[in-house]
Amino acid sequence: MSMASPASLITRLDSTEADFSAKLSALLAFEASEDEAIDRAAAQILASVKAHGDSAVLDATNRFDRLSADSVAALELSQQEMQDALNSLSAERRHALETAAQRVRAYHEIQKKECGSEGFSYTEADGTVLGQKVTPLDRVGIYVPGGKAAYPSSVLMNAIPAKVAGVQEIIMVVPTPDGVKNPLVLAAAAIAGVDRVFTIGGAQAVGALAYGTATIPQVDKIVGPGNAYVAAAKRRVFGTVGIDMIAGPSEILVLCDGTTNPDWVAMDLFSQAEHDELAQSILLCPDAAYIEAVLASIARLLPEMPRHEVIRTSLANRGALIKVRDMDEACAIANSIAAEHLEISAEQPQQWADKIRHAGAMFLGRYSSEALGDYCAGPNHVLPTSRTARFSSPLGVYDFQKRSSMIHVSELGAQTLGKVAAELAYGEGLQAHARSAEFRLK
Amino acid sequence: MSMASPASLITRLDSTEADFSAKLSALLAFEASEDEAIDRAAAQILASVKAHGDSAVLDATNRFDRLSADSVAALELSQQEMQDALNSLSAERRHALETAAQRVRAYHEIQKKECGSEGFSYTEADGTVLGQKVTPLDRVGIYVPGGKAAYPSSVLMNAIPAKVAGVQEIIMVVPTPDGVKNPLVLAAAAIAGVDRVFTIGGAQAVGALAYGTATIPQVDKIVGPGNAYVAAAKRRVFGTVGIDMIAGPSEILVLCDGTTNPDWVAMDLFSQAEHDELAQSILLCPDAAYIEAVLASIARLLPEMPRHEVIRTSLANRGALIKVRDMDEACAIANSIAAEHLEISAEQPQQWADKIRHAGAMFLGRYSSEALGDYCAGPNHVLPTSRTARFSSPLGVYDFQKRSSMIHVSELGAQTLGKVAAELAYGEGLQAHARSAEFRLK
Repeated sequence: MSMASPASLITRLDSTEADFSAKLSALLAFEASEDEAIDRAAAQILASVKAHGDSAVLDATNRFDRLSADSVAALELSQQEMQDALNSLSAERRHALETAAQRVRAYHEIQKKECGSEGFSYTEADGTVLGQKVTPLDRVGIYVPGGKAAYPSSVLMNAIPAKVAGVQEIIMVVPTPDGVKNPLVLAAAAIAGVDRVFTIGGAQAVGALAYGTATIPQVDKIVGPGNAYVAAAKRRVFGTVGIDMIAGPSEILVLCDGTTNPDWVAMDLFSQAEHDELAQSILLCPDAAYIEAVLASIARLLPEMPRHEVIRTSLANRGALIKVRDMDEACAIANSIAAEHLEISAEQPQQWADKIRHAGAMFLGRYSSEALGDYCAGPNHVLPTSRTARFSSPLGVYDFQKRSSMIHVSELGAQTLGKVAAELAYGEGLQAHARSAEFRLK
Repeated sequence: MSMASPASLITRLDSTEADFSAKLSALLAFEASEDEAIDRAAAQILASVKAHGDSAVLDATNRFDRLSADSVAALELSQQEMQDALNSLSAERRHALETAAQRVRAYHEIQKKECGSEGFSYTEADGTVLGQKVTPLDRVGIYVPGGKAAYPSSVLMNAIPAKVAGVQEIIMVVPTPDGVKNPLVLAAAAIAGVDRVFTIGGAQAVGALAYGTATIPQVDKIVGPGNAYVAAAKRRVFGTVGIDMIAGPSEILVLCDGTTNPDWVAMDLFSQAEHDELAQSILLCPDAAYIEAVLASIARLLPEMPRHEVIRTSLANRGALIKVRDMDEACAIANSIAAEHLEISAEQPQQWADKIRHAGAMFLGRYSSEALGDYCAGPNHVLPTSRTARFSSPLGVYDFQKRSSMIHVSELGAQTLGKVAAELAYGEGLQAHARSAEFRLK
């Protein structure tokens, strides 16, 4: 394990440099490679599942995951199997998983209450009633990756908001290459109240959920992360079913006033960098000496991390320590970055949070490390990446609800509205619209 | 104008027939043709706009719209031009447009109040504060088609919710082939408070809004319908910016107990069918004699409609009059259809509305013709089509807002949360996550 000189560990930038904007843009630039071959392969698998249902799912699963199941039904796990996985956990781990689930549930129940789930209705002077009805989705599919990115916490974060929203049936799919199952993932499914689990994955699982097969019911929305084939398949079935955002690499932006223990900030940067080589960890700070201290912490702490190779690559290629003029400038830069995770590690953090318009989640104060939010603070850890926090939101109860407008026009109301509608309909050349309104005039 | 026999005008189905489900599925089946050539052309235009900015936008606009502008700046309309368009309208038309805008604004202001726009925050016993902050998008692009589908009502329906949400800047794009401008569309932009208007369209307009050029600012979300090139381009820029749903053909489902004037129902079916040949109009009714009466109304009223050819094709290819066992069955079928527009033309319509889970908008009672909702009832007319009401919602204020989770863990809170997070992080093999949590333990 060679110890690189601190200077080569991570990019250093200064916002007063003339070319700072260009350098920052280059650092942030990330383009998901569009692999035409992957896209075509995913399209072929989807077409085959659509045409042949179970047999296509079975063939693809046996081939890609090296299994020899004789039916899709044989790929379904029983509730007992999930309960057994839960029972197999150590008391500490089970307690941690149940505590996390309980806190995530509590947060999303409050979110449900606060996000307009009751709908609304109001009556106008002429008796016309207008409003909106909110209903849960009927059935949702949750994709859980197999292999190295199999996170039980993600099972909780995807399934619990759906459950809280009132979704009747949650179908989970998780590939088990070579038949290897992850007991923590199955235990999380048991705790979250997942209704059915199929050990299938890839584009074939996305197709099965989107179109339905004889064995696997069609869902209304598919959520959860997957590899490039899964992402390509989700993009293609969007419209047939709903999908969540296509996630990019994970990001943390730490905005620090220089008063937090630099070891803590260094480890927070690592916690993002350890996800994968494309993850991005950036520090914004007005205090040059503090930045040096964080750099020293990085150099000292890095070698002892089990995932140091991933962290090193991620920090070197995509990380940065950025000296800013002041915290106000840090907030402005944070708004342009629109990070997935924004730590405001500062005294009186709320004053800076008030200036932030774009971030997936904000972690305020030096005790709010992102890792707490990843597992058990309560808010969702499925967050908008790659600057999409400019226009999208954390996964939430609202993603498992939809709204219907309610319009009950009174006889009296139809007299005034009918004239307006007819005038505009004639203006647009839609005479049947106009006549339909005029028929209701006395 | 030849008068077809009533029987050939529209498909007749009966829910008691053995093959009813299969016939209904065949009727509903609609697959947006994925034209690879269109998709490739859109991709090329996007790449060109991304690489060459204004000059690519200018070239494409001059070529496709047969213009000879010498800069993109020359393609921008002044506020005066929009105001002039408004001033040029007849008093009746202007009044209708302003009344519609006022009602749409009023509805969306109530929606904003009721949909959780204030966010929320709560404090736990150990001092940890959790919540969610809601902010408007900074800048939004509205695509308005040129030519036959240029609807001023759509300008209102797209721009007003954005304005109510608090979006700072609304950029409208509208192609003007051969330089022909639609004064009603420009007047609607003036009334809705659109900030800037560029007379560009197609994939080049989508690219300009998604990537930004020297003249056209980058937006955070693009909404509004367009042709196949626009739809393909929107799909491709999804992720760089937000997009609304890709709209399919418009649909009306009328659920009638047989007590409404059959002429009214026939005209309501026409009002959808006149949009285009792919539009879908379906009646569900338990009363066989009433269905005959509606059919007679269709046969009698159709020849006098200016758009009778479009209506005839749409009804013949995609319409249906369906005899059901009773209104309960009608509701069940309506849930499986998940129509964009659902009219419940019945006595005491609320009892049936209570049974509906999936519909873009519900029109209750015989005075609530869909046309009133299209123009001026208040709720949005941008609605989920092609069964997507199973998982998506009318365009609303919430589409122009996004949420950020707020997590402020107290020192005390970090002691309990830190242990839970560390236990789970070790379970997932993410040691830096665990250490980051453990650093906060005393």
